[in-house]
Amino acid sequence: MRRDRLVRALRGEPTDTTPIWLMRQAGRHLPGYRELRQQHPILEIARDPELAAEVTLEPLRRYDVDAGVVFADISLPFAGLGLDFSIDPGIGPVVARPVRTRADVEALQAFSATRDVPFVGGAIERFLELEAERPILGFAGGPFTLASYLIEGRASRDLPETKRLLYAEPATFDRLLDRLTEMTIEYLRLQLDHGAAALQLFDTWVGAVSARTFERHLLGPVRAIFDALRPRGRPTIYFSTGSSHLLELLARTGADALGVDAREPLGAVRRRVGPSLALQGNLDPAALLAGPEVVRREAAAVLAELPERRSHVFNLGHGVLPETDPERVGELVRFVHEAGVPRR
Amino acid sequence: MRRDRLVRALRGEPTDTTPIWLMRQAGRHLPGYRELRQQHPILEIARDPELAAEVTLEPLRRYDVDAGVVFADISLPFAGLGLDFSIDPGIGPVVARPVRTRADVEALQAFSATRDVPFVGGAIERFLELEAERPILGFAGGPFTLASYLIEGRASRDLPETKRLLYAEPATFDRLLDRLTEMTIEYLRLQLDHGAAALQLFDTWVGAVSARTFERHLLGPVRAIFDALRPRGRPTIYFSTGSSHLLELLARTGADALGVDAREPLGAVRRRVGPSLALQGNLDPAALLAGPEVVRREAAAVLAELPERRSHVFNLGHGVLPETDPERVGELVRFVHEAGVPRR
Repeated sequence: MRRDRLVRALRGEPTDTTPIWLMRQAGRHLPGYRELRQQHPILEIARDPELAAEVTLEPLRRYDVDAGVVFADISLPFAGLGLDFSIDPGIGPVVARPVRTRADVEALQAFSATRDVPFVGGAIERFLELEAERPILGFAGGPFTLASYLIEGRASRDLPETKRLLYAEPATFDRLLDRLTEMTIEYLRLQLDHGAAALQLFDTWVGAVSARTFERHLLGPVRAIFDALRPRGRPTIYFSTGSSHLLELLARTGADALGVDAREPLGAVRRRVGPSLALQGNLDPAALLAGPEVVRREAAAVLAELPERRSHVFNLGHGVLPETDPERVGELVRFVHEAGVPRR
Repeated sequence: MRRDRLVRALRGEPTDTTPIWLMRQAGRHLPGYRELRQQHPILEIARDPELAAEVTLEPLRRYDVDAGVVFADISLPFAGLGLDFSIDPGIGPVVARPVRTRADVEALQAFSATRDVPFVGGAIERFLELEAERPILGFAGGPFTLASYLIEGRASRDLPETKRLLYAEPATFDRLLDRLTEMTIEYLRLQLDHGAAALQLFDTWVGAVSARTFERHLLGPVRAIFDALRPRGRPTIYFSTGSSHLLELLARTGADALGVDAREPLGAVRRRVGPSLALQGNLDPAALLAGPEVVRREAAAVLAELPERRSHVFNLGHGVLPETDPERVGELVRFVHEAGVPRR
């Protein structure tokens, strides 16, 4: 049962308890990862299946989480488009020459998952050799979030260049989205081919756009991704932040589950999106910076929002913060498994 | 009538047409301001009533907007708390020593508006001497946004220190909020004393917190500000961004109007907050980077959301972007006054 908890919850099937995994569960809050990072840059780890599998396993050895998460960065496939990028400490992906014109978009190379990111498949296979029981989750960046990195050149709060393109050259924006959509479908299919049990699309920044813009320019591409993956029969999650104004539209993307940030109570989300989608989330990552009582109180509040204890995958609203004490994470995982058992 | 358009709309009274002003209408998109900034830093302009009034008047000479906005920065009153801060180009307010402990909070000096920010009153008076017809709007930062600048030391997307304090030391956070609330009431009263016709509270970053946190830690302080100002009888606006998940709570703050960012259609906001609040907004500032047809199409879409043409102040969803062509702004103002006339 433990092997299937995550997948069953994402499909709305009954489980023995509420499954839990944490975004960035393998990352800077863990000592093994910090040590490895002193010897290898992120991209070197991500491109080495042995190292990537090792990083993915560290939290599984320490915590009773219900899945591993492939160690990768959403920018990895950019290399296949012919783009020069780096991952800068404290900044994230930085694209050397941003994509801002029709000519820039047309100059993108054709992406091939097997040629450009074979190591992601390798990391999944290596994980499955080493971990007999728990599944591995694959992921990719959502099309808006990928586009915003390419257009801005790096993370940006206000996304001025992305929004300029949307209003001033919508056809160029749409063309870029089409290219990223194709790329993402190929990239996620590769992860399924190598054994990913479920997939998450991280469209972290999509909450920056209006409902009008989402419906006009983004719903189509996101749906195209989930439609293309549906025949494979593995569950999918669409994650975004600050996107309360988009909820009814997010429910139409074709994902099996919505990843919800810490802003809104899951019960309110359930009422707006209906009963058919699973929900994932949504403890505030900052709650783990407080003491054990606060963690339990806040986690209990999340569980109480979905009292039927079904179609819920416990997670944070965003990634684990680097300064988080691993003790708190361990306590959280135990608490959720104890308190998240369905009532008879 | 033109003199009263803004105030009447904020009070829900009929107007001859939809009033319009723009956040950052006096700013880097205008040549006079850019020229002045080559000779004076922001704080020097803000602390000189003659220069501040001049900057406030520049957009009124160029556009038929319905109000001036006092030239100030939300960080101005920090000096009265004994804090050393600067406004750094491209970054915004930077606080030399962030406020992160109970001792830091207790060390804040007592604020006195007449001692610490008299020049803001002076700038309002000078404006009213020079502009016979149109009113001036005063403003201050909202308590959460001010607190986040003090705690983080500068603008921050994820507000990690602010959220840590909220969970790990809630009593310290609440005490800081109380101090900022007192300060803000005094600061806004000074602006009313000198002739501000209406007031806006810019709680720009409050959308980063959950509904639970807003209700527990922020609704009280924000209400206290509007309750203290209500006896003066001048309308108030509460502005925030990315706060769709908070709308029902924002409706309980006691403000006369809500400033709404570009994410959500005003009609949907109206349905959630009810008929008694005026709404301000919410054209995407990026729309002004496109051509005249796009500006008209998008502005018409905003007006169409509130077809009764009442209780609506037209504005952008956020500030005018520095790269905006003043021609587009002029066209927008004319279009809103023409198309925003109530139907018979």
